[in-house]
Parts: sequence; structure tokens; C-alpha cells
Amino acid sequence: MSKEEVVLLDFWASPFCLKVKIALDEKGVAHEGREEDLFGGKSELLLKSNPIYQKVPVFLHNGKPVCESTNIVGYIDETWPSPPLLPPCPYGRARDRFWADFIDKKVFDAGNKIWKTKGEQLEVAKKDFIEILKQLEGALGQKDYFGADSFGFVDIIAIPFTSWFYAYEKYGSFKVEDHCPKLSAWMKRCMERESVAKLLPDPEKVYEFVIMFRKMNGIE
Amino acid sequence: MSKEEVVLLDFWASPFCLKVKIALDEKGVAHEGREEDLFGGKSELLLKSNPIYQKVPVFLHNGKPVCESTNIVGYIDETWPSPPLLPPCPYGRARDRFWADFIDKKVFDAGNKIWKTKGEQLEVAKKDFIEILKQLEGALGQKDYFGADSFGFVDIIAIPFTSWFYAYEKYGSFKVEDHCPKLSAWMKRCMERESVAKLLPDPEKVYEFVIMFRKMNGIE
Repeated sequence: MSKEEVVLLDFWASPFCLKVKIALDEKGVAHEGREEDLFGGKSELLLKSNPIYQKVPVFLHNGKPVCESTNIVGYIDETWPSPPLLPPCPYGRARDRFWADFIDKKVFDAGNKIWKTKGEQLEVAKKDFIEILKQLEGALGQKDYFGADSFGFVDIIAIPFTSWFYAYEKYGSFKVEDHCPKLSAWMKRCMERESVAKLLPDPEKVYEFVIMFRKMNGIE
Repeated sequence: MSKEEVVLLDFWASPFCLKVKIALDEKGVAHEGREEDLFGGKSELLLKSNPIYQKVPVFLHNGKPVCESTNIVGYIDETWPSPPLLPPCPYGRARDRFWADFIDKKVFDAGNKIWKTKGEQLEVAKKDFIEILKQLEGALGQKDYFGADSFGFVDIIAIPFTSWFYAYEKYGSFKVEDHCPKLSAWMKRCMERESVAKLLPDPEKVYEFVIMFRKMNGIE
């Protein structure tokens, strides 16, 4: 293992990069993180390794690039099989992949509309965001984690996005917990896990990043 | 195998449903197809089995639903492993999944903009569509099939969308072959495969469907 080169082209506030960091930590795989300057200029290595999207995260395993965050987590799960993140049966795997894809398509875009809009549009954005979280609560059901009794694939895909929830709550004047108590309990449960507690950025710092980003983009 | 119940909630012109039909045919798995009436009213079984998206295809294996077409193809590949569609090594699998996701995100939406727009917007739509096909040609490289020398996962994800290309060409007054000769050669190669030749709908019929759909939606 010691000869393996595991590099992540990273950005601290990106929930997509965070998925990869949690997955590596859960597997006990050490990596070298290289922080990208997304505003000053992306590295040549990023542009060369992900020419299609030119986005972080890019995962480089012995120099070979893997792109798209959920795809990277799947690659990590297959490359270092212990402990497994996806369940062993095809049906459970398909169910987990369905929800991972749902989360990727919905949560971040819906949440970010909250701090990009105001007035009536903001109310619609909040309603849509809460509706998506309620669908996730439905997927959680009565279980402690998504699809299982232990922390796994869908939890790793979902939990990074929650580090932006404080910013959404500040701009939207609402509390996720008031609308989705079961999802909030799941968030607290995940936060007790070492990998998550250690790696999730401070929500206040993410909120400050959103304030800065809004200013940069002339959103008042 | 004979006691297994394999049902597909289907729609004949859907390239998403077609992926599933080709995958099942490649695996030699018989299935019962149930044509959905997408315009007159979707079946209760569809609404119950895919409450999140309420879309075809829905795959029911011994009554248990699997949704989202590329996810279904992955489920089929894991459930009936022979012949394999995804390559054996994690790196090849991650690469195939990356391109499958790219195709799902880009090709159909970009193509459909061609018959939904006119004038300057149509020219932009054509340019965008051809650019996406050129990126796919880049992924194909010098190989006969995506990522391999034989027909596999990415080919099954991609080839169904080509049954709509004739409609795009008619509305856009262009020929895919003039811009993307390597991709056109790949299309012809795939059409020589029994599963594809047998299952791809007649492009003229798809074109007539698009004419009807435009009328229904007041697009002139």
C-alpha cells in the first residue's frame, strides 16, 4: 500500500470533494490533498485530468484520474473493498445508487437557490428544498442510516451537503429541524462518527464563504 | 430461471427504456414488456413503483422495482453476470460509468432542443449537440466500441439515443455523419449487432412521433 499514490484535487467548501475525503477516511486510505484555487486559476493538472467538466474533485490513483464525486466513491469502494460501503446484494446496491443519484441531482442546486433569490422566489426555493428533504426522510424511513443500520454509501453521499444547511437556514429564515426532525436526527447521528466530525467544515465558515461568493457575483 | 418474473414498464420510443431492453437481450433474459400510456394516463403500478420520478422505465424483478435506466442496466449486469457488460477492473468500470453519466446528462436534452427551437436558437442547439457528439468521439478514440474492442456497457447506454438522430437531422437540416464520421461508423457497427438491429425503433417512426409531440405541445 505504501507505494500507492493517492491524490485528491480538492476545495475545502465543496461537498462533492468531501464525499471523497470521508470515503477515504472510512477505508483508512491516506491521501495527499491539493487545494485548488477555483477563483484565481485552476491547476494544469485539474484541466488535463478532467477536460470534460474542469471541476473538482479529481481523484488520481497512481496518476490515473477518476472524475465525478459519486463515481469516485464507487471506485474507492471497489478498489479498497474493506469495509464495504455499498451493500452486497444487487438490489440493495441499485437502491443505494438510485438515492445517491437523487441527492446529487437535487439537494445542492435546490439549497443554493435559497441564497440566490429573494421575495416570492425565495419562498418557492425554500418550499422546494424542504420537499426534497422530506423525500429523503421517506427514504430513511425508520432506519438509523440510509438503507441500513450502519453508516454506508448513501450516508457518505448525503452528509457533505448538510454542511451548507446553516447558510440556507440563515438566508431562508427557517430551521431544517422544524420541518424534518428525522433527517436532523440522522445528521446528528452522522456527526458522532469520527470521519464526519473530523472532516465536515465549520458551518459558520461555509456561511462566510456564501456571503463572499454572493458579493463576488453581485447578488444583493 | 423459469420462475423469475421480469417485467418492464416500457414506452416504445423511449431511449431510456431501450437501454434496458438491449441489456436484457444481451444477457438472454426474457421479459414481459408492458407498454405505458404516457399521454392517456400512467398505470397505478408505475406510479407506485417509481413515486419519485413517475417515469418509465421501471424494471420489476420478482415484483421488486428498480428505477432509473442506467441504474437498471447496472442491476441487470450484477444480477445476470454473463456475459459481463462492465469491464472487470475498477478503473475501467469508473471510466464506463463516467461516460454513461455524461451521455445521460447531455445527449437527449441537447438533441431535443433542435426540434423545440428555431432561428438563432436552433443554430445554437445544433452547435451544442454536435459539440457533445464530438466529445463522445473523443471518448471512442480509435476503438471500435466505447472503452473496449467489444460491445459493452457504454454502447448500450449510448446507442438508444441515436434512434432520435434522424428527427434531429430533419429539423436541423444537417447530417451527423458530416460532422462526426467516427461516431457514425460506430453507430453502423452497433446496428450490425442482433440486439440493436432488432430493438431500435424505425427512425421514421420516431420522427413521426416528434411531429405529433410538437403538435400536441403547440410547437410550430
